[in-house]
Amino acid sequence: MATKVSPLAPATVPTLPPIAGVRLAHYAAGIRYKGRSDLMVAVMEPGTTVGGVLTRSLTASAPVESCRAHLKGGSGRVAVVNAGNANTFTGKQGVADVGATCAAAAKTFGCKPEEVFVSSTGTIGVPLPVEKITDALPLIAEKLSATDWLAAAQATMTTDTFPKLATRSLSIDGKAVTINGFCKGSGMIAPDMGTMLAYVFTDAALAPGVAQHLISAGADLSFNCMTVDSDTSTSDTLLLFATGKAGHTPIESLSDRRVGAFKSALDSLLIELAKLVARDGEGATKFIEIRVAGAEHDKAARRIALSIANSPLVKTAIAGEDANWGRIVMAVGKAGERADRDKLTIAVGGVTITRDGAPVPNYDETPVVTHMKGQEIGIDVDVGIGNGAAVVWTCDLTHGYIDINGSYRT
Amino acid sequence: MATKVSPLAPATVPTLPPIAGVRLAHYAAGIRYKGRSDLMVAVMEPGTTVGGVLTRSLTASAPVESCRAHLKGGSGRVAVVNAGNANTFTGKQGVADVGATCAAAAKTFGCKPEEVFVSSTGTIGVPLPVEKITDALPLIAEKLSATDWLAAAQATMTTDTFPKLATRSLSIDGKAVTINGFCKGSGMIAPDMGTMLAYVFTDAALAPGVAQHLISAGADLSFNCMTVDSDTSTSDTLLLFATGKAGHTPIESLSDRRVGAFKSALDSLLIELAKLVARDGEGATKFIEIRVAGAEHDKAARRIALSIANSPLVKTAIAGEDANWGRIVMAVGKAGERADRDKLTIAVGGVTITRDGAPVPNYDETPVVTHMKGQEIGIDVDVGIGNGAAVVWTCDLTHGYIDINGSYRT
Repeated sequence: MATKVSPLAPATVPTLPPIAGVRLAHYAAGIRYKGRSDLMVAVMEPGTTVGGVLTRSLTASAPVESCRAHLKGGSGRVAVVNAGNANTFTGKQGVADVGATCAAAAKTFGCKPEEVFVSSTGTIGVPLPVEKITDALPLIAEKLSATDWLAAAQATMTTDTFPKLATRSLSIDGKAVTINGFCKGSGMIAPDMGTMLAYVFTDAALAPGVAQHLISAGADLSFNCMTVDSDTSTSDTLLLFATGKAGHTPIESLSDRRVGAFKSALDSLLIELAKLVARDGEGATKFIEIRVAGAEHDKAARRIALSIANSPLVKTAIAGEDANWGRIVMAVGKAGERADRDKLTIAVGGVTITRDGAPVPNYDETPVVTHMKGQEIGIDVDVGIGNGAAVVWTCDLTHGYIDINGSYRT
Repeated sequence: MATKVSPLAPATVPTLPPIAGVRLAHYAAGIRYKGRSDLMVAVMEPGTTVGGVLTRSLTASAPVESCRAHLKGGSGRVAVVNAGNANTFTGKQGVADVGATCAAAAKTFGCKPEEVFVSSTGTIGVPLPVEKITDALPLIAEKLSATDWLAAAQATMTTDTFPKLATRSLSIDGKAVTINGFCKGSGMIAPDMGTMLAYVFTDAALAPGVAQHLISAGADLSFNCMTVDSDTSTSDTLLLFATGKAGHTPIESLSDRRVGAFKSALDSLLIELAKLVARDGEGATKFIEIRVAGAEHDKAARRIALSIANSPLVKTAIAGEDANWGRIVMAVGKAGERADRDKLTIAVGGVTITRDGAPVPNYDETPVVTHMKGQEIGIDVDVGIGNGAAVVWTCDLTHGYIDINGSYRT
């Protein structure tokens, strides 16, 4: 797993401020990795609400099923995340192991098991050495910190080559509100939901229904618009914890006029995190933004954009710095959504290559060739049918992806 | 395009016998390739019926749209196929070029333009130098041969590393009947339809409706069960020409008791051709057969099998000779079809690895490791819901695929 940092990693990692009511810790539990932290625990004060989005995989992991049940309660006090073992497809024992973790965390941190949210990421089908987690929890309780965001995020990483954190601040009723988030994910990344694990924390006061709505809507604009390899994880988990410590009166309903500013900051943070996952796509050398317009409706536009983003032929062409737009035509055609071949417009790097179903006259490839040599590739497609639009983020498909995934377990 | 032959190529290429009423020729027209034939023409005698299956891509090529129109007539006299230029996304000029080819072939070979079936395979979006084809047709008319099957098949190849031919013989009413077929395809290969171009010829006497039904049903059992890279071509074409020269009375209806034997031979030939395409998948080093049982219905089984077959994580694991069955679990889960995680059974190389949603006790990986080192990989999955079953063929995803597709146009 010792891979060099993605060339698409941001130059700096943001420093996340404390959030009242949230403390975190990391721990080297030795579940799979040696010499690094592989266990992350976040503890929230009483009164924290929670909303979440989980994988729609029909072979979802035991931790995902547990989170799905616990989200119904709307109260989130503890998140326990281990890296290196997905506790997926581990049968009844896997379910029992999640239960044991929830019980131990509840005892250690003074809450109900139903207020504990467990996630596991790593190899599928290997029994979890759960006592390494349960034994560690009392030790972790001594290490909780309000500022250890970076180390917490690093403890959740598997094939990730850099930690992914983001922060936003806003004001509600004159009170300063912070939103912090981090996520992990590099391979087995496709909607729905997008990344494997993402955690967002805020001191805003949100009723559970509001938190749930905002995180669902935000996932749809961010992680669900991002793909690395079209493979949907069995463990995808996105959770939003709202401690309510900012001091403003709680937001109880979506019609509250204060929702807009919070939603805008949250969506922006989620999009930043989702883009970071695409930038750390296994083997990635190019970050790709695909903008589709003119589709029958927004969903159709997203399906077309994902068809382009998931096409191995498009992704390998971009890896080879070849603006092979014929493959974009192909990917539009296979998406199954309405498109007018004779109105199709394609631009790469802002340069229009085709219009009305044929290459533009006297098309000069020079600026496009230059664009393809860069690290940030932009593709615009107008399918000429209606007003549906979507944006999707992905990365290229390179030898690095084959290297990483041809030997993941060994 | 000078790649070495796939390690999965059959040891020998079958010699195809003549079929009464069919003559073929190949020609070096210099459309894109130098020093090789790139134009194939098959000429059938009057009375030949035709059925066909064409890509469902919404950005289908001009030749595909022409074939779709001409299939309505049910009479097939000439097939004209060029390699190196797909005449796709070439606007009104592309449509005019197909028309010019049909007109020239009709004049040269004495039939109607509506009895000519044109296919083009190669780069998308480049205007076709159509006069290189139309000028060549009178010269080709002098070269027609009843035995030149191999060279004809070779003239249609693009990134293919070996020619793909198959033959079957059977008896109808005591008359010997032959079915010959060849196809090309290596990348941009996914249902629906499967390969880019496939041509099947028989001297059986089939009414056009019978030919159409048989080729549609056969495609569903063969090319539509095969994928290389999940990318559906804009040019996929499968045509069946039946000259009726075998001498039996024509088969006019599907309820004719003689249909069974012919259908069985045809399906078997189509499956052989489809498997050859998977064996020549770009960069392939392993041929993979995925058998799914226990699904809600057959279509669900196929969707699950294709989800496994198209998963980059499954394909790279197999390339790395790693029986990473957790990724098979993932691919079952993302397929969107009903599956019972707690009844899921997975076997690789005939060795059961998981049963009832968890690894089998005392699972010994040794025979599976040996199996993974071979060239023929078998995966069996039972999803534990119903009686739906399907078989799908594919290949692994290797550095070779990246090499080929990162530099296709250059």
